[in-house]
Amino acid sequence: MSLIVQKFGGTSVANPDKIKAVAQRVIRSRKEGHQVVVVLSAMSGETNRFVDLAHQMQPIPDPREMDVLLSSGEQVTIALFAMAVKAAGYESISLLGDQVKIITDSSHTKARIKSIDTDLLNRHLDSGKIVVVAGFQGVTADDEITTLGRGGSDTTAVALAAALQADFCEIFTDVEGVYTTDPNVCSLARKIDRISYDEMLELASLGAKVLDIRSVGFAKRYKVPVHVRSTFTETEGTWVVEEDDEMESMLVSGVTYSKNEARITISKVPDTPGTASRIFTPISNANIIIDMIIQNTRAGEMTDMTFTVPRTDYARAMAIVKEVTAEIGAESVSGSENIAKVSIVGVGMRNHSGIATTMFHVLSKENINILMISTSEIKVSCVIEEKYTELAVRALHDAFELDKLNQPTIEV
Amino acid sequence: MSLIVQKFGGTSVANPDKIKAVAQRVIRSRKEGHQVVVVLSAMSGETNRFVDLAHQMQPIPDPREMDVLLSSGEQVTIALFAMAVKAAGYESISLLGDQVKIITDSSHTKARIKSIDTDLLNRHLDSGKIVVVAGFQGVTADDEITTLGRGGSDTTAVALAAALQADFCEIFTDVEGVYTTDPNVCSLARKIDRISYDEMLELASLGAKVLDIRSVGFAKRYKVPVHVRSTFTETEGTWVVEEDDEMESMLVSGVTYSKNEARITISKVPDTPGTASRIFTPISNANIIIDMIIQNTRAGEMTDMTFTVPRTDYARAMAIVKEVTAEIGAESVSGSENIAKVSIVGVGMRNHSGIATTMFHVLSKENINILMISTSEIKVSCVIEEKYTELAVRALHDAFELDKLNQPTIEV
Repeated sequence: MSLIVQKFGGTSVANPDKIKAVAQRVIRSRKEGHQVVVVLSAMSGETNRFVDLAHQMQPIPDPREMDVLLSSGEQVTIALFAMAVKAAGYESISLLGDQVKIITDSSHTKARIKSIDTDLLNRHLDSGKIVVVAGFQGVTADDEITTLGRGGSDTTAVALAAALQADFCEIFTDVEGVYTTDPNVCSLARKIDRISYDEMLELASLGAKVLDIRSVGFAKRYKVPVHVRSTFTETEGTWVVEEDDEMESMLVSGVTYSKNEARITISKVPDTPGTASRIFTPISNANIIIDMIIQNTRAGEMTDMTFTVPRTDYARAMAIVKEVTAEIGAESVSGSENIAKVSIVGVGMRNHSGIATTMFHVLSKENINILMISTSEIKVSCVIEEKYTELAVRALHDAFELDKLNQPTIEV
Repeated sequence: MSLIVQKFGGTSVANPDKIKAVAQRVIRSRKEGHQVVVVLSAMSGETNRFVDLAHQMQPIPDPREMDVLLSSGEQVTIALFAMAVKAAGYESISLLGDQVKIITDSSHTKARIKSIDTDLLNRHLDSGKIVVVAGFQGVTADDEITTLGRGGSDTTAVALAAALQADFCEIFTDVEGVYTTDPNVCSLARKIDRISYDEMLELASLGAKVLDIRSVGFAKRYKVPVHVRSTFTETEGTWVVEEDDEMESMLVSGVTYSKNEARITISKVPDTPGTASRIFTPISNANIIIDMIIQNTRAGEMTDMTFTVPRTDYARAMAIVKEVTAEIGAESVSGSENIAKVSIVGVGMRNHSGIATTMFHVLSKENINILMISTSEIKVSCVIEEKYTELAVRALHDAFELDKLNQPTIEV
């Protein structure tokens, strides 16, 4: 008998009928002989409703009270779910984060799991129950309620699977798995059967929303196989697992894009020590996260400094930068919100040189100007003008033959 | 500096604006120099919404899961309330039943409080915080969430006041206090300034909804002065306190009525030992509560048996009684849902004979037929035809001069 953790998100438990349908799905796994721990999110829409109520109380809601408020959402779904399972004739029990003892640090609204007590869970599993755990929430050692931040239920599920040494963790969602690229952009996008933790980490950080990045980190650290699949079909989804030879033989696993960034350029920055620090410290103090930075040395002692910030922080960042520009004696500031970041990801890049070159060549053939480049061991990202995003994604998907199940290892 | 517990019901915290208004009211008490513990119910409507959701899951929802579900309602209001207090510049913290350690027995959906740990509460009060506690909920020694049943937040408030040895407990509601009778029925109804615990217990059990009966029992046992008053005005309400001489000098404190009962009569029951048991055991087994029973001995060996049941259980009770009637060889069964119970309550009755006689006389003068009578040391109840309810209430209110502030001690 294997033990599996199954996580269902807010859209999967959005109303009574959906909760009952999910209960039936879980019971099927039980009938197949598995022990099952179910992790649930709040009904979709509830979290936004709570956030809205909180903002009517306090301009910046107190984070501790925010966690008390938000965690009530999963409390509702786990209780209803346990009732639905019992109504179908199976034993079940709901457990809150503090009942399971999912101990976190005290960073309210973005807490990190420190430990999970498996005693109570194992006792209920051993007595034959379908155990239903509230996702997204934990408790500090001082009995204060915490939440893990958006996407936190994925982390709860993978962390529970790790703690319980479950055979695997299934993340049920409204898509069929992880795709080679966004099917809405490229009709030839293909579901990936198996992908490595590292590739999934890159995809998640580059804008793929199917799986929360922290949960992938957890899965990698504790070697938990994660199966991302659809709530609404029986089809196998994508397995996120340890890297194997087959994955390495692929040049590229996926093409992803993000339209969440904006670009700021400071022209003719005097090239003196400490200038970068004077530019970036006030931005960082304003809690604005900088993604890519490029410095182009010009003739003489001047450089151009270009960097990207989240698009939602663009106006704030520009205001800060304009002040700094005057102080350091740079010539001017320009920027654009109309950019996109297009990336290719694949563990195969480690062993195949020239993948980046191929990417640049493909974009150049389409007359797409590359504004910025950033690379890691297993990914290459290019910032381009936003209007070329879809064109770039399709061209790259085609060039790396991602529509083909067995992508040839072409020499480039 | 005094310590007070203030409880606000669901209508008082029904939306963000009302929560902010209540926060201002609590802060006023704080400014006056009081330490304040606030007890809140769920927003009005939430409990019914949860009950409805639960019934969509399971015909008879699992009581343990019901408590997990229901208790999420107060969690929302206490978090929002603490935010509102903080936004107004005062320190505040919300605490759930399990965080306070309001330990109850394990009777889910109708648990009883066994103990309250005051350490955490006192620590937060001493540090100057307005402490906001979730009403209606507790936790078992095994960390299982429980709820206290409808009206349970009143009990939480009085129990907290008792445990903390608070100076008094204020129950804020949508009426101005306890009245001599229902103001909707009798325009001369007068707010009672002070009433004894025993009288309040009778009024609560006889249909007055202003205060939950269990909270009055708690208040009596621990001698907690309870102030019932309006959320929406500054007027003094009704103090529920220990009996004093002035109360005893009053003949009657209040007239109350209830239209929640139905009457069943079994005619010509053979008067043999064990018959009553054969009638009432199956009714009691069906969890139907019998209020009044009257047995009229007829000529010979036959009696008529009349009793009242909650009107909501009338059909079920009739079905059971019809079966039993055949078994025991009684002649026939009749019944009526169109009855009402009118009662007078007052500790003065202990020392004044003839109050009951005056009541019967008043009803007779109005040509109201008395169907059943039941008395206790401090109350007399008469069952009459429902259509005479308002007439009876007004006539009794008038006869005992309840509209006058200082009711004369008339000899009857």
